[in-house]
Amino acid sequence: MPYVDIVTALALLQFIVFAFQVGGARAKYGVKAPAVGGHEIFERHFRVQQNTLEQLIVFIPGIYLFSRYYNPLWAAGLGVVYLIGRQIYAVTYVRDPAKRSAGFGLTFLPTVILLIGGLIGAALHLAGH
Amino acid sequence: MPYVDIVTALALLQFIVFAFQVGGARAKYGVKAPAVGGHEIFERHFRVQQNTLEQLIVFIPGIYLFSRYYNPLWAAGLGVVYLIGRQIYAVTYVRDPAKRSAGFGLTFLPTVILLIGGLIGAALHLAGH
Amino acid sequence: MPYVDIVTALALLQFIVFAFQVGGARAKYGVKAPAVGGHEIFERHFRVQQNTLEQLIVFIPGIYLFSRYYNPLWAAGLGVVYLIGRQIYAVTYVRDPAKRSAGFGLTFLPTVILLIGGLIGAALHLAGH
Repeated sequence: MPYVDIVTALALLQFIVFAFQVGGARAKYGVKAPAVGGHEIFERHFRVQQNTLEQLIVFIPGIYLFSRYYNPLWAAGLGVVYLIGRQIYAVTYVRDPAKRSAGFGLTFLPTVILLIGGLIGAALHLAGH
Repeated sequence: MPYVDIVTALALLQFIVFAFQVGGARAKYGVKAPAVGGHEIFERHFRVQQNTLEQLIVFIPGIYLFSRYYNPLWAAGLGVVYLIGRQIYAVTYVRDPAKRSAGFGLTFLPTVILLIGGLIGAALHLAGH
Repeated sequence: MPYVDIVTALALLQFIVFAFQVGGARAKYGVKAPAVGGHEIFERHFRVQQNTLEQLIVFIPGIYLFSRYYNPLWAAGLGVVYLIGRQIYAVTYVRDPAKRSAGFGLTFLPTVILLIGGLIGAALHLAGH
């Protein structure tokens, strides 16, 4: 399943880029560690990174579970939707947090399909199908 | 190991439910993104979600490590204890953070057994047992 | 790949130790849950744990991706560098957050090599090499 591995690695590289943007905002707006607040734009970058972490903890097991029971190419395709959705999420959140819903949905939906698909696949496998 | 896959997927769905409860508390108590503080009950929900994230980063590799070297059914059984413990943790934490210890222990104990069991299994495997 | 499993388990045990140090600092400096701020030294411990979580979400998939396409012993060796770097990071961050860069680099560099190595390995595999 090299396609799934590639999409997973790209999702993690995207997360690293978000982390660098937090570091950049930390320097630009003078938010000194260990503080993670005190400047609105810094906090937006920080929340993008944190929310992406929360997505990844589901997305990564999800994409491998799904690809264990179904065609890994479908898993990789859903992963590409995740990547695009997450990029939209990051850009719109930093611009205006109130407009983060579309990007969030485009990340969350493929993640949930991967997870629930994997769950159903495992259950059907147990049931002998 | 479809049993392990099912327990893992359920643990991730439980995490998603906690995340939705954070979103619900955000709306109910008027905590606008990117803020993650400002209302005590919101903060409790948020800490439940964050602590669950911290548990999952250990639990998920742990359950697969353990099931690589021992009977996957035992791994899945420990995972069920985790699921129940985490549910108790979430309910008691939101009610009164001072009473979160029992639920925390019931989550942490199976997680540590999975992890240390997996570590010992890998070491014994190397040693040729 | 028991060597990779052992390094992964050690990285997770290290994370658990950091989490206990947060709990200890919470008690010592009187920071009551759900608060995660209010005392500088507590906040340093807390940030060490949170940053380690952010590293692990990349490190763990990274080490397995790398070991799928290259020699797992190299992956385990890079993992040992990560373990040492993270220990330096934790100690220096708590002493003085401004001096966290060396330890951070020693964690981040092996993680990025594992991830990008895994990505290249998967891409070469697809290309038939």
